[in-house]
Order: sequence, then structure tokens, then C-alpha cells
Amino acid sequence: METPAHPALGTVHLVGAGPGDADLLTLRALHLLQGADAVVYDRLVSPEILALVPACARRVAVGKSSGHHVVPQKRINEILCELALEGLDVVRLKGGDPLIFGRGSEEAAYLQTRGIAHDFCPGITAAQGAAASTGVPLTHRGLATGVRYITGHRAKDHPLDLDWKSLASPDTTLVIYMGVANMAEIALRLLHDGLPPDLPVLAIANATTPRETRLLSQLDRISRDLDATPLPGPVLFIVGQVVTLYRDAPLALLAPGLDAAPEASAHA
Amino acid sequence: METPAHPALGTVHLVGAGPGDADLLTLRALHLLQGADAVVYDRLVSPEILALVPACARRVAVGKSSGHHVVPQKRINEILCELALEGLDVVRLKGGDPLIFGRGSEEAAYLQTRGIAHDFCPGITAAQGAAASTGVPLTHRGLATGVRYITGHRAKDHPLDLDWKSLASPDTTLVIYMGVANMAEIALRLLHDGLPPDLPVLAIANATTPRETRLLSQLDRISRDLDATPLPGPVLFIVGQVVTLYRDAPLALLAPGLDAAPEASAHA
Repeated sequence: METPAHPALGTVHLVGAGPGDADLLTLRALHLLQGADAVVYDRLVSPEILALVPACARRVAVGKSSGHHVVPQKRINEILCELALEGLDVVRLKGGDPLIFGRGSEEAAYLQTRGIAHDFCPGITAAQGAAASTGVPLTHRGLATGVRYITGHRAKDHPLDLDWKSLASPDTTLVIYMGVANMAEIALRLLHDGLPPDLPVLAIANATTPRETRLLSQLDRISRDLDATPLPGPVLFIVGQVVTLYRDAPLALLAPGLDAAPEASAHA
Repeated sequence: METPAHPALGTVHLVGAGPGDADLLTLRALHLLQGADAVVYDRLVSPEILALVPACARRVAVGKSSGHHVVPQKRINEILCELALEGLDVVRLKGGDPLIFGRGSEEAAYLQTRGIAHDFCPGITAAQGAAASTGVPLTHRGLATGVRYITGHRAKDHPLDLDWKSLASPDTTLVIYMGVANMAEIALRLLHDGLPPDLPVLAIANATTPRETRLLSQLDRISRDLDATPLPGPVLFIVGQVVTLYRDAPLALLAPGLDAAPEASAHA
């Protein structure tokens, strides 16, 4: 008698948790979460979304957080594998989309080498969440013909490795993730490469959550403004002429009505 | 006795329908659709998603389709306004995300001038859907530090208006929407501006639906390959080194298992 080599191997679902608001999960993501035996999650996954994880599911936090231990990528890969080998249905939950700055494809490549079944479920990016909540489009006829996502972080002791000249494209909205620490340098370089000093910049922290905060600035003073008004949590920058469409109605755009909606319900 | 000027004015929700698979709607989008009195939708919204519109809701098709009448943007704006003035809760449903190539911000600007309440609900882009279904990431350490979305269409008798030099960035994944008709010109220009002839290109039609088809090619022959194997429906191109991660397992990545899943369920 033969038995299958892996009679009860689990599957790993690499799932985008979206920008924070649990209502912005996809139907598939919710379904996968509700059926999960184990959930391995990042720091960027909001409390609202973690509240949807079944009580019986094993939870494994692997996200970075200042002051907390960081689980190296190699160890995260192994954890996913170990859980699947136990026969568990695993959701690997990541802020935003697993295939945009999410390292989902690195984890998938490792799972592939170990023979673990896996699939991807996309998530709304923080950029899309911020656009919807602020009303600032990422493209708009006459203002931006396209949009570009970059990261503004750097590996320790390494320079920012970006194609600066190509970045300074006045017709493209630039969305900068993880850029707070290096915004002074980023803004200076963009100015040097020809973007106008008064190009508007909208910084958004914790987009789509009740903790969302915004800072409207422009390229030649965004760094000073951030020093004066630090934003809490992960910050996203939207840089470009599309920001001229921003109307300072912080929460009304998500849950509008002819009468002002109470703030607490604006992100419900 | 005074009565409010607009006692029963409706709200217009500008909603992203995502890439096609109804499971990739957000929870909020489903909720808005189910509560809608009227749904105004584009050609790019899939039959699977239109099936979720309540039977009692008014449906208004305004999308372009070759051979069919095109509703001009100005008229679409007016339709949204008229429905809201009737007191209806209106969902304006768009393929992908309303604020990325969706003209959602143009419709919002018009509604604003008419005093009609409106809000945005983001949707998974076709690019994200294609990435998840093919397993090709949009960023990947060592292959792409960022991603850029552009459109490859042009207004009648106008040249393609793109910053070609800036587009030819080897470290950035390029996602091209609406590029089929002009792919020969786009590829030639990217080659001329320095991208390598063997840079891989993955063309995906109807991503995430049961009608998904794919064509793996490279920059110097994508146009010939499209002539030889035309793809049906809206086509998206992913151009960049990330495409080297593509494994030709058309449906297995969406609904994998250690045994092959039946095709019909792969997008369920």
C-alpha cells in the first residue's frame, strides 16, 4: 500500500490586507482569513483586520517594529514552511498588496523550492487607499498621464539607489513609500533634477483608518514641515500636480453626505 | 414653512470593480453595490460582477465597445447627476480603480460643481490582478525597485505623448494599459531609448476571469507575436525583469494544490 508523500500538507496564501480599513479587504481575502488555521502577519496589518482572524487560528507576528525584535526574512520563510508542513492552511497577511513592495514573490520562491503549494490574493495598496480617502487621483487628464510607486528607504549604510533623472517626470504622479527618514534627500534630488519647488506634496499616515492624518506641503519645504509636524505611523507621499485637486475635507470624502458625517463613522 | 432645497438628493459612489473576478471586489464595493438604486457601469466591468447588481436597481451601460454607441464623458457626468437628483443612491462602477486611469476625479469634479455628494471606493487594478494570477511580482528585490503604470493609447490623430527617455528605466517594472494598438511603436521607442531587446514582456487579457489568456514574449518581438496570436479583450502588458519569474502554470497559481485543480474552479 502506498500513501501520498505529504498526506496533509497545507497551502500558504500570500494575501494583501490592503491599506488598513477592514472594509477594503477583498472578498477573497476575508474568505481566506476566516478559513485560516494560522495567520502570519506584518506590523503594517491594522488592528481592525487582525480582529477578523478566527479565535482558534494560530497567530504569528513577524513584522518589524522599532524596539521590537525583527524576524529576518529567512526565518519568516521557514515559519511559513513549517506551518504548511504541519498541514495547516496558512494566510501570510501583508499590508497593501503582496506583490508590490511586499516580498510576496520572495516567499513564494522559497515555498516553491520546498514543494509547498501557495497562491496570491491581491490587496488595495496604501496609495489607492490614500487616493480614495483624500480624493486625490493618481492619474488625471492634463495633470498626470501615469503613476509610479517607489520606496524611499535604504539598506543600512547604503545610498538611496534610485534613477533620479528618470524620477523627475512632471507628468507622472510619484508615490513614495517608506520615505520619511530620507525625505530631505529625496526632495533635494528631485528639485535638482528639475521638478518645481512649489510642486505639491501630500503626506498621509495610516490612510483609511480612524488614525489617518495628512500634511499638505510642497517639494521645497516638505522636509521642514515634517520636522515641525511629525506624522505618526507609516507615511506615504503623493508628489505631483494631482495634489492640486486636494480639497481639505479630511474625512468627508470617504463618508460624505450633505450634512457633515460624524468623524468616528467616517471610516466605518 | 421651509423645506430643504434638496430633500432627497442621492449620493454617487465612484467604485472600483477590480480586474474582473467578483471575489476581488472589496467588502465595501459589494456593500455599496448591494445597496444601490442605480448602477452606471463601463464596458470593462465583468459579467461576473454585474451579476451582483440587485435586480431592482436601474442599470445604465455607458462603456465604449467597438460597434456600439459611445457615451461621451460629458453625458456620463450628466447621467450621474440626474440620477442623484432623483434621490437615487448611485454606484458608478469602473473596471480597476476609479482614481487610476478611471476618470473618477473628473466625474467627482463635475459632481462637486453640482453640489452632489460623492465618495470613492478603491478597486484592485488589472495590474495587481494579473500579478496575482500569473505570480509575476510588480517589484522584486534585485529585479525591480519600483513600478510604473502608463497608458499606451492615444487621442485620435495625436502622437503618443509619453516621456520615452524616462520610461526606459531598467530597474522599474512598466505596466502598460490600453497599449495593444500601439505596441509596435511603444516597443520600438523603448528599444531605441536603451531597454534590451530580450527584455521579457508578459501580455495578459481578461486577467483573473475564466477568460484569462497570456502571451509571453520579449521587447523585440512582442508586436509580431501579438499579430500572430491576437489576444481577446482588454490587454495589459508587464514589461521588465520581473517577468523572468513567470512560470508557465497558467491557472495553478490562483488555485494551487499539490494535485492539479480543475480549470473551471481555478478562478472561483
